Amino acid sequence: MASGLQVFGQPASTDVARVLTCLFEKNLEFDLVRIDTFKRQHKLPEFVRLRDPSGQVTFKHGDKTLVDPRAICRYLCTQFPNQGNRNLYGTGSLERASIEQWLQAEAQSFNPPSSALVFQLAFAPLLEIPQDHMAIAENERKLQQVLNVYDEILSKNEYLAGDEFTLADLSHLPDSQYIVSSERGRKLFTSRRNVARWFDKISRRKAWEQVVKMQMEHPGAFE
Amino acid sequence: MASGLQVFGQPASTDVARVLTCLFEKNLEFDLVRIDTFKRQHKLPEFVRLRDPSGQVTFKHGDKTLVDPRAICRYLCTQFPNQGNRNLYGTGSLERASIEQWLQAEAQSFNPPSSALVFQLAFAPLLEIPQDHMAIAENERKLQQVLNVYDEILSKNEYLAGDEFTLADLSHLPDSQYIVSSERGRKLFTSRRNVARWFDKISRRKAWEQVVKMQMEHPGAFE
Repeated sequence: MASGLQVFGQPASTDVARVLTCLFEKNLEFDLVRIDTFKRQHKLPEFVRLRDPSGQVTFKHGDKTLVDPRAICRYLCTQFPNQGNRNLYGTGSLERASIEQWLQAEAQSFNPPSSALVFQLAFAPLLEIPQDHMAIAENERKLQQVLNVYDEILSKNEYLAGDEFTLADLSHLPDSQYIVSSERGRKLFTSRRNVARWFDKISRRKAWEQVVKMQMEHPGAFE
Repeated sequence: MASGLQVFGQPASTDVARVLTCLFEKNLEFDLVRIDTFKRQHKLPEFVRLRDPSGQVTFKHGDKTLVDPRAICRYLCTQFPNQGNRNLYGTGSLERASIEQWLQAEAQSFNPPSSALVFQLAFAPLLEIPQDHMAIAENERKLQQVLNVYDEILSKNEYLAGDEFTLADLSHLPDSQYIVSSERGRKLFTSRRNVARWFDKISRRKAWEQVVKMQMEHPGAFE
């Protein structure tokens, strides 16, 4: 498999989930390599690293190794432009520029409060760690500001970067899915009409549904 | 992890399950490495190899590599005699000789008809492959003969090699569990009083219950 695509990591990690979703959208063949460490008596959460809910992903293609999930998605789209979903990274330079802006917005504005909320709302209860209510309130406030902007944009566009589902939308799925799994988090999405419509639509993509299925089969941190 | 214990394979494989059960009984730390191949559109059963339900296991300890599951179990017991269950491979030479006889009986008499039945009764329906009724009848007949002998022995001993649970019993668990998952297979065990008592007891071992949980989380061939 020297020239094959390999992903190392657990689907429960949001970064791994980003990459898997992209691979399924691009309809590419790949190997997923998962390593679980079993310690005396219990399985120790190897996934302690998921306490940082961004988790960890490693991607290999031949002798190329990448660890940034958004860079991996870009790489897959530019290396395999004609496989699977061809619109994922835009078909023109203007469209690509818009997708890039949104990938930056996701990484810099959406992801920091979101990943904090993923931990507090979805992971902490399952790990039986007390929730930090100050942190929840603060990150909720930050995410509300971000989502207000999104709701405005999504009142004009069907998807973030225009009329097509792209990496811009895809990259928001993993955090969002964990956030809406809690009642408090779900309200952040459902209380904004356009955000609600958008998330409902993108979370029904077949590629994403397959990743959610894998996360449920093997929840990692919560076993 | 150069000096650590590593197992490569899927818990759904009976050979992998043998090794995992031994590791849990011995309460050893290890890494389980699973590789799933995703092909265009579908996940292709990487586990086509499970059509041979013995599957495949690779074990590494430092620079030592083993692939025979019974040899791996022996190795774990002799390398780590004082960890976890100390009786697993016997504490005296007579007891060990008896365990060895039963490991041979399992590999040579029990396993061939059993693994055929595992495929026909448990795997074929899930893979939507027509069952071969001739093969079922023939292997059922062979397994009945084997289990008649077992029932006789188990009327005198609590476990196959004496009064303790050992590798002799452990090695029977993976095939047996799949066989009893079908109604026809279950009757082979429940219709023999001592075999039924014995399987009921060995299948409730914590180590085995953990393996079954892992098999259900990630059934491999059936996804």
